[in-house]
Amino acid sequence: MNEKATIDVVGVGNAIVDVLAEADDAFLAAEGIAKGGMTLIDTARANDLYARMAPAVEMSGGSAANTIAGIASLGGAAAYIGKVADDQLGAVFAHDIRAAGVRYGTGPLTGSEPTARCLVLITPDAQRSMNTFLGASPFLTAEDIDVALIASARITYLEGYLFDRPEAKAAFFAAAKIAHNAGRRVALTLSDTFCVERHHAEFTQLIDHVDILFANEGEARALTRETDFAAAARALSARCPIVCVTHGAAGSVIFADGGAHKIAAAPVERLVDTTGAGDLYAAGVLYGITAGRDIPTAGRIGSIAAAEAISHVGPRPQRSLRELIAQTLG
Amino acid sequence: MNEKATIDVVGVGNAIVDVLAEADDAFLAAEGIAKGGMTLIDTARANDLYARMAPAVEMSGGSAANTIAGIASLGGAAAYIGKVADDQLGAVFAHDIRAAGVRYGTGPLTGSEPTARCLVLITPDAQRSMNTFLGASPFLTAEDIDVALIASARITYLEGYLFDRPEAKAAFFAAAKIAHNAGRRVALTLSDTFCVERHHAEFTQLIDHVDILFANEGEARALTRETDFAAAARALSARCPIVCVTHGAAGSVIFADGGAHKIAAAPVERLVDTTGAGDLYAAGVLYGITAGRDIPTAGRIGSIAAAEAISHVGPRPQRSLRELIAQTLG
Repeated sequence: MNEKATIDVVGVGNAIVDVLAEADDAFLAAEGIAKGGMTLIDTARANDLYARMAPAVEMSGGSAANTIAGIASLGGAAAYIGKVADDQLGAVFAHDIRAAGVRYGTGPLTGSEPTARCLVLITPDAQRSMNTFLGASPFLTAEDIDVALIASARITYLEGYLFDRPEAKAAFFAAAKIAHNAGRRVALTLSDTFCVERHHAEFTQLIDHVDILFANEGEARALTRETDFAAAARALSARCPIVCVTHGAAGSVIFADGGAHKIAAAPVERLVDTTGAGDLYAAGVLYGITAGRDIPTAGRIGSIAAAEAISHVGPRPQRSLRELIAQTLG
Repeated sequence: MNEKATIDVVGVGNAIVDVLAEADDAFLAAEGIAKGGMTLIDTARANDLYARMAPAVEMSGGSAANTIAGIASLGGAAAYIGKVADDQLGAVFAHDIRAAGVRYGTGPLTGSEPTARCLVLITPDAQRSMNTFLGASPFLTAEDIDVALIASARITYLEGYLFDRPEAKAAFFAAAKIAHNAGRRVALTLSDTFCVERHHAEFTQLIDHVDILFANEGEARALTRETDFAAAARALSARCPIVCVTHGAAGSVIFADGGAHKIAAAPVERLVDTTGAGDLYAAGVLYGITAGRDIPTAGRIGSIAAAEAISHVGPRPQRSLRELIAQTLG
């Protein structure tokens, strides 16, 4: 390890503003949207779908960005790298992540592509179905990767969604390389089953270089091509030192040091919107690890942070997670 | 009266996107912001204040626009006239009001002024303090006033905030004149005590041409220059057929047909954010009047709509007011 780390976690991801609106199952069916998933959409589809959506609310999002906002809310030193455009939604994204206490200095894209937005449809069962227009976000390049910043961070956290465009993928690999060269750890979230299937070979190569892996059950199966979950988990934990597999309301399992730690989900008074649940679970686990907590405690912090995220509309914490953890864990 | 009205209420106002964030009293004090009021700010101040604000949420706002969204949610035929810019926040505003079921066709301003935004600071006591950057909104001109639309509406509803810029004021007077020439009614909200004081002479002339007036206690006093509330109310009701004076949590009084109708506030389970309370009260009253309800019932609909607005963050209804009224009034 090089010099003392000054950042706990730096995230690299698609910088996205979420546009959240209510929808019913009939609307999803009419639009051909698979509930709970993430679909990439182009400009025409984005405009078309938006025109039919209910009145919406705009909030900063982006998977790794949500996680990093969670790290800051937990009291960790956090930084983020991701590309917005030089437009109003880009200003919203930059304001919100900085106001959350995150170091953020990626220069905006000036050109025709607007800031990325994700049209999030929230059904009465609190599930979110995401329709992402990537806009400027995949124009993140290796040049945007701040070498000193990555080298100064205990963990570099990457989102699998970046794999959807070659420019961003290159930035992704550059960041991972810098982190490992500096003796730091690399964490990855697989993000989405279809994303894993689209880039199966590259994800398979990549995980040998990942120290901390986040996946839900579907993503774990898609990557290992094992239909049996236990076999999938074994396959992943043979290759990554720490593997966190989430099971929604059933909690999660963290495979580490040859053992499997079952982590219960934290209670939620009223389930409102699952947007950000996985992102905030990752925040809690990563924060716990950088704070020197043991794996079960890190997992518990993840569960508590996820429970906060799903108790309101929007993907980022709306209260201090640091205070929440202090009250809950004592 | 001319032909049969096809619109219940058309609103004319500043088309604004709200940027809502939490703040504490110390922040308001440090920024020199008077709690509960509305302050006009310029570009430099808007950027400066925004940079120090907490992470925010963007939602369409604008006083009359919120009222009109409420009319639509109540089941009324609603239309809106207001100016946005040809930018992302303008697209957000246009989407949201149309998605709420409102007819909206004002052409966007193309030029240097962006869509108006209001930086709303919500304190733990649920009070909102508004800092408005008017941007494109006062560039509404008499040409934007759709004559046929105004003539087809039972009530044309105008917000006092438009008085803050001469271009918009001219549009305001044009709309009122068209409405009266078509034998329709004109409603006005005084909007803000300081706004009334800034334009005292013109407001005083204007109210003789207003059929339905909305004011809170402070605005009623500022306009009449009576320190005694009863005297202020008498002075206003001598000049306007229907005068609705709101008293926050204490409810409202509607002066009409020579009588004073006390309207109780509707119960609120959890007071979250008072943004939009007055706007939604006006929606309920105006809807009630156009639906042929008596004044006490129209007032009660106003109270119920206002209670919904203050039970969540954001100024517009987040559930069907039509269903809420059906459940509550039976």
